[in-house]
Amino acid sequence: MSYRLAQLAEKVGAKLVGDPQIQIDSVSTLRSAGAGSISFLSNYVYKRYLTQTKASAVILSKDALGDCPVAALVTENPYLAYAKVVELLNPKPELPLLGIHATAVVDPQAEIHETATVSAHCVIEAGSVIAPRAVIGPGCVIGRDSRIGEASRLIARVTICHGSVIGKRCIIHPGAVIGSDGFGLANDDGTWVKIQQLGRVLIGNDVEIGANTTVDRGALEDTVLEDGVKLDNQVQVGHNVRIGCHTAIAGCVGIAGSANIGRHCAIGGAAGLAGHLDIADNVTITGFSRVNSSVTAPGSYTSGTPLQTTREWQKNSARFRRLDEMARKLAELEKNIKNR
Amino acid sequence: MSYRLAQLAEKVGAKLVGDPQIQIDSVSTLRSAGAGSISFLSNYVYKRYLTQTKASAVILSKDALGDCPVAALVTENPYLAYAKVVELLNPKPELPLLGIHATAVVDPQAEIHETATVSAHCVIEAGSVIAPRAVIGPGCVIGRDSRIGEASRLIARVTICHGSVIGKRCIIHPGAVIGSDGFGLANDDGTWVKIQQLGRVLIGNDVEIGANTTVDRGALEDTVLEDGVKLDNQVQVGHNVRIGCHTAIAGCVGIAGSANIGRHCAIGGAAGLAGHLDIADNVTITGFSRVNSSVTAPGSYTSGTPLQTTREWQKNSARFRRLDEMARKLAELEKNIKNR
Amino acid sequence: MSYRLAQLAEKVGAKLVGDPQIQIDSVSTLRSAGAGSISFLSNYVYKRYLTQTKASAVILSKDALGDCPVAALVTENPYLAYAKVVELLNPKPELPLLGIHATAVVDPQAEIHETATVSAHCVIEAGSVIAPRAVIGPGCVIGRDSRIGEASRLIARVTICHGSVIGKRCIIHPGAVIGSDGFGLANDDGTWVKIQQLGRVLIGNDVEIGANTTVDRGALEDTVLEDGVKLDNQVQVGHNVRIGCHTAIAGCVGIAGSANIGRHCAIGGAAGLAGHLDIADNVTITGFSRVNSSVTAPGSYTSGTPLQTTREWQKNSARFRRLDEMARKLAELEKNIKNR
Repeated sequence: MSYRLAQLAEKVGAKLVGDPQIQIDSVSTLRSAGAGSISFLSNYVYKRYLTQTKASAVILSKDALGDCPVAALVTENPYLAYAKVVELLNPKPELPLLGIHATAVVDPQAEIHETATVSAHCVIEAGSVIAPRAVIGPGCVIGRDSRIGEASRLIARVTICHGSVIGKRCIIHPGAVIGSDGFGLANDDGTWVKIQQLGRVLIGNDVEIGANTTVDRGALEDTVLEDGVKLDNQVQVGHNVRIGCHTAIAGCVGIAGSANIGRHCAIGGAAGLAGHLDIADNVTITGFSRVNSSVTAPGSYTSGTPLQTTREWQKNSARFRRLDEMARKLAELEKNIKNR
Repeated sequence: MSYRLAQLAEKVGAKLVGDPQIQIDSVSTLRSAGAGSISFLSNYVYKRYLTQTKASAVILSKDALGDCPVAALVTENPYLAYAKVVELLNPKPELPLLGIHATAVVDPQAEIHETATVSAHCVIEAGSVIAPRAVIGPGCVIGRDSRIGEASRLIARVTICHGSVIGKRCIIHPGAVIGSDGFGLANDDGTWVKIQQLGRVLIGNDVEIGANTTVDRGALEDTVLEDGVKLDNQVQVGHNVRIGCHTAIAGCVGIAGSANIGRHCAIGGAAGLAGHLDIADNVTITGFSRVNSSVTAPGSYTSGTPLQTTREWQKNSARFRRLDEMARKLAELEKNIKNR
Repeated sequence: MSYRLAQLAEKVGAKLVGDPQIQIDSVSTLRSAGAGSISFLSNYVYKRYLTQTKASAVILSKDALGDCPVAALVTENPYLAYAKVVELLNPKPELPLLGIHATAVVDPQAEIHETATVSAHCVIEAGSVIAPRAVIGPGCVIGRDSRIGEASRLIARVTICHGSVIGKRCIIHPGAVIGSDGFGLANDDGTWVKIQQLGRVLIGNDVEIGANTTVDRGALEDTVLEDGVKLDNQVQVGHNVRIGCHTAIAGCVGIAGSANIGRHCAIGGAAGLAGHLDIADNVTITGFSRVNSSVTAPGSYTSGTPLQTTREWQKNSARFRRLDEMARKLAELEKNIKNR
């Protein structure tokens, strides 16, 4: 595919600065771009590469325009415009109707729409419904009474446990497990008794779930991911968690059972959320933070200490062990001086 | 299934308060319960829902009875009684004898008991033994010379690497990998030389292993999970780790090689344990804690800093970098004042 | 296999102390060793077991020789010598040529070398190349246009997404996912727009990738793991990350997108690295550290606080919340005293 710069400007709603006739056929980073390529600047870490870029044009915001040596598409949200340009230049081919592969094992009581694809070595259990244009990639297991919505795609080797409901246009990446049992255990005088997990997983529309991410079924009620939720790789979602619409959660985040996360939140990589707490809408948790109690107001939250050389850290960290004592000494000293 | 409240009281060993004839046919949360439902109160976060519940009865402890608007089963361990009631009201059907699915690939030198189930697209390698009533779900791989004990269940897409031994009545959830090579590397002047991993994984009886959890084989000796150990999802257990009986480990915990964890421990989600250390029996590690050295006494342990707004955190965190300096200044000041 | 101690000394380049005729046929830990076994001491945690060992010989460094009650192989790098001895005593049998299993689904446009093995229930898509002596274990999925290099081994249930390139002699453990989409999302007024991920994953030679580890494809350019990189289990590598040669990364580490990690680095378990940063060569990050900005000099780096009893921690942690205030009070006090 190829577009004139003027066409791209119009299609993504950006202001064109430069020659409208420039022909663009690919997207590249500022550093690697050459003639015919359009690049973008959305993270200011990369601003240093702008002045030297060999791209034919760059998508950027107004305040970076002065440093741009080539044509530009100016917009308030360069990253979004870039996403749209990538889509325009790389249109996805219509997927062929592949039907059910000969090696797939489909229960006679499962219902596969004639426009759905079930790939090699899949297992589809009784009572499951695969909606129109859904694509079940190779090696997936769909437990009984599950539902995969219209045009959703399970890339490969995904496990959907019984009774799970996946909405429309979802994407689930390899190795993800949806609807595994929650970690429900009652202690009987030192030994653990398993609590049956009777709830389901309900996933809305336009949800994306990363590779090797796990979402447990509810204990009594359901675990719910609302529309537009995005989970990166290796995220763990405990039983009865509810994640509000359009919340994005980066890789390796762990969310303990019955946490209730608002809408439009952003949770950074490897953060950990305790169970039975509420996170308000529009909350940002930075990466690697530990969330031990509810967050009731929008805003950005963090925990942890900064990286140091291990030698410096050892000294400071030893002091942390006695921080309370230090604070009490300081208070005494203050009082002492005041009283003189 | 349906029981009179008096029957449930007797079966779970609770004291009945209210009408013994009330008919109970389901378990619900305090908030969603309706007529015919029994609910429970074990986490005091939810006490606010007790007075308004529409449940026909509630399982609770003595001290919450005063706030209960309906009939009650009073017990010292409401969560355990709830586990038992769920089991009574949701009896699991006898699993049908399904035998070996036509698409399973079973080595002639594997031994599958006639009451065991091997599901679609499984691979069972030579020398493996699948004991009576074990159920190998779809898409599992059982490496050579492994043993799956009586009545154990591998839900789906589980990998058991060669030589692993799984006890009786274990449950292993989708995507788990048991017996992968440990991370054994010797440094040869800058490049890494792989150390053959010759040990096995030995798993006791009544062990549960969560989705996408990994347990590495030992280097020379074995990695051991004793009876009744419960691992949540995405736990990583390094080579030669030993976990004592009835220890429960929540999601995303990482345990480095040769750690030796006691019995009846509880490790919170996303905690990290360094290798070559010992954790005593009955130790609790709270979620997201970092354990860098042995813990020799029972009790609860924590590390980390509390969540704050990112703005506040930035200031405190900058001070942490110089905490040692601060402590030294404070000490000088104290001395200075004392000397006056 | 069995060797005389003199032979082992020669083969691993160690100095022999003791009877050269001692016959060695196995490797054991100091504690469990018996006659005919050789053991090793590389981690000084285990020095306490040296004096009591029943091994026939021990591999150790010069400074531990005085405590060794039996014959010894003395070397500067006992762990490396141990790795070599394990290899000598446990030679791997030549793998049989198994070819393509009858249940594997191989696209006619894939190219499988005649000495390669494709195991049961694999799926190999069009355009893929499986090089000589590569072994694709059971249940793997190789997406279109991927390449698996000579003598590389995918143990079982590995997913290689389209276009990935795996070098020679790599080992990829069960459940790993290579080439899944990166977490690329642009925010369009509150909802997330997926950014097509057009890059690939390029993996060099002699790379080992742990169980359930995930490596995302690049967004525009490629995600790159250079020669000799070793990743443990459950590591997450975001899109466009580059990891320099011979860097080793322990379990549960998360690396966010576009991080650029140097050569010969060592990253401890469960550490977290933010995106768009640079880590110099020869950097050590200790386990469970959070890396939020670039590290420009070699050395060892840490963050976090030490484990304490939860009770002590609560007091210190509460003080951390007001550390900045404490520092300001201390400064005032200093000034106050100085001015008197």
